[in-house]
Amino acid sequence: MSIYQNRREKIYDWMALEGVSMVLFEDTEGRRDPSVRWLSGQPSDALLFLSIDRKSMLIPWDINMALLYGNADITVPYGEFERHPIRAMRGAAERLKIRRGVKIEIPPVTPYPLFLNYVGALNDFDIICRELGVHEETEKLRAVKDDEEINIYRKAAKITNDIIDLLEKNVRSGKIKTEADAALFIEAEGRRRGCDGTGFETLAAGPDRSFGIHAFPAYTGAAFAGKGLSVLDFGLKYAGYTTDVTLTFARDLSPAQEKLLTLTEKAYKLALSMISDGTGTRTIAAAVDTLFGKSKKHMPHALGHGIGLKEHESPAIRNRDDNSWVLRPGMIFTLEPGLYDPLHGGCRLENDILLTPAGAEVLTEARVIRL
Amino acid sequence: MSIYQNRREKIYDWMALEGVSMVLFEDTEGRRDPSVRWLSGQPSDALLFLSIDRKSMLIPWDINMALLYGNADITVPYGEFERHPIRAMRGAAERLKIRRGVKIEIPPVTPYPLFLNYVGALNDFDIICRELGVHEETEKLRAVKDDEEINIYRKAAKITNDIIDLLEKNVRSGKIKTEADAALFIEAEGRRRGCDGTGFETLAAGPDRSFGIHAFPAYTGAAFAGKGLSVLDFGLKYAGYTTDVTLTFARDLSPAQEKLLTLTEKAYKLALSMISDGTGTRTIAAAVDTLFGKSKKHMPHALGHGIGLKEHESPAIRNRDDNSWVLRPGMIFTLEPGLYDPLHGGCRLENDILLTPAGAEVLTEARVIRL
Repeated sequence: MSIYQNRREKIYDWMALEGVSMVLFEDTEGRRDPSVRWLSGQPSDALLFLSIDRKSMLIPWDINMALLYGNADITVPYGEFERHPIRAMRGAAERLKIRRGVKIEIPPVTPYPLFLNYVGALNDFDIICRELGVHEETEKLRAVKDDEEINIYRKAAKITNDIIDLLEKNVRSGKIKTEADAALFIEAEGRRRGCDGTGFETLAAGPDRSFGIHAFPAYTGAAFAGKGLSVLDFGLKYAGYTTDVTLTFARDLSPAQEKLLTLTEKAYKLALSMISDGTGTRTIAAAVDTLFGKSKKHMPHALGHGIGLKEHESPAIRNRDDNSWVLRPGMIFTLEPGLYDPLHGGCRLENDILLTPAGAEVLTEARVIRL
Repeated sequence: MSIYQNRREKIYDWMALEGVSMVLFEDTEGRRDPSVRWLSGQPSDALLFLSIDRKSMLIPWDINMALLYGNADITVPYGEFERHPIRAMRGAAERLKIRRGVKIEIPPVTPYPLFLNYVGALNDFDIICRELGVHEETEKLRAVKDDEEINIYRKAAKITNDIIDLLEKNVRSGKIKTEADAALFIEAEGRRRGCDGTGFETLAAGPDRSFGIHAFPAYTGAAFAGKGLSVLDFGLKYAGYTTDVTLTFARDLSPAQEKLLTLTEKAYKLALSMISDGTGTRTIAAAVDTLFGKSKKHMPHALGHGIGLKEHESPAIRNRDDNSWVLRPGMIFTLEPGLYDPLHGGCRLENDILLTPAGAEVLTEARVIRL
């Protein structure tokens, strides 16, 4: 049984339990969902239907790509349904022999007007769209990586770490001078080592721009790693899975800059020390917020997030009252405390952590580099 | 009056006409909407509220960035509302002095479950979420570029064309050998010329991979522009606006490859000849489908699309029964016929067209390059 079929079996079990007869997963522009890839191998741009009779139907935009990568019981090009989701659903219900009147679940990100269209056009079915349904269940399953995924992450982390070492070396030697030098170096070296590419647009911000959480533009021809705080946030995608790390380069810091950096390092150590099976992620994020608060500092973003086929996945690691995520072995996630000041610049330290039964394993080797 | 305020005035007029008291535009992860940037200058990650009293309130994730780029009457960091959209809306209604019972319009991409949350939490207002509302109206306004935007596009096209010439030269000389060489060359040269970056991930596919509409991975270390058909699809983002072009490199073609390419060029010429004020875009796309159909070929994607702050904008240029777009002066859009064959490879020719009162002006100089 293929890994994709194996994963689908878990969803079929859940569907049987919940009495849902057909489920739609959708990965299209504006509504990206890597669960389609996780369940079928199809890298992007497809609909995937699963039926309670344990059959799958893949409807890809690019049929040639699907014949190479896709794994499903039935594959039909989207063009056969005029690339129209409601017509595709009608077609899938016929091909998968779904009986009238039963429950069909659509993604919780389905826009309200489109939801009304589904309900209107498929009024012989019971269309369900909810936050806590099969899609949430799939995200929960994806949050705990299986052995194959953990192996991929070890390789991705190895490449990321090799490139971190080279970045440090080349910044120290003066070979990397500008933000663009750093970003293009990562892009070229990552692909040379077998990566699919970067997991997101590399953010390289020299001292004048590091105050931005996400620098805009992401990188420029401006000097990098001069006097002050410079931030380099990047991820490498390997076999679909992305790492996500942030280095801070520090040179000739003022006392105010030194304080931002020291506090960030302290927050990182505190967070890492709290990682353990069964710990609520909100507790960890709240501890960091408290630490920063004691120095009258405020972190304007979450402490971390799961990583995987997308750069931001479950579990959430933030101090918000709707966050009830609890750490479990197999989860891979970032810790990324940071502080930002329009006068002094910003700093962030971010690594990727795998929680094993034995405790936290820091997969990546991002660090503060004092020049 | 700033250009942003000018644009907001058009929305205020529309709100008055439609009796909508407050509107939310949202640009966040998973729900990107460049209308926020178009109306406020804020590059990304923010909520923007407009009130019928002609006031605007920007709620950015990164307050430092908003102080640099944002243009609004009131600016409050998202953190003040715990980065929670419903709390932000409640806060905006208070600050903008919105009376109870009136209409508040939210984006048409709002997920159904989130729509229910808005309605539940803000039951003292009339929450509207519809396909043909203020957001659609804004997209229609954005589809017709103003003079400032057309000037930006002329600069973006100039840079794109310079790089196209260099790409041709370097492929002919053998300096660009691999897909990654081509893609990284574009990335580096674009930024060197003042671009924000690429508008989307460059797709470079040598002969073995060009059958994919969007190659996967986007580019690799494999040979580019060898015997057969190679495709290079890229865009450069300048001052926020992206170009979008595709070159096909052809070398020692088989008769089947030659036929794919000749047909594609013929389709491109046919489409271009039909561009005029008042023409329905579906008519043009249908003519191309018919042309391909006569040779028993099928194009598996749309003929083109508007471009702007996003790589895919209005107008749609496709042969689908829900497409009623009509070309108007000021529109900037792609024409990109292509054919793909798993045995012979694929080809596509794509340029950016500005419709002026005098007719079609082809801004970019992408072409078929026969080696």
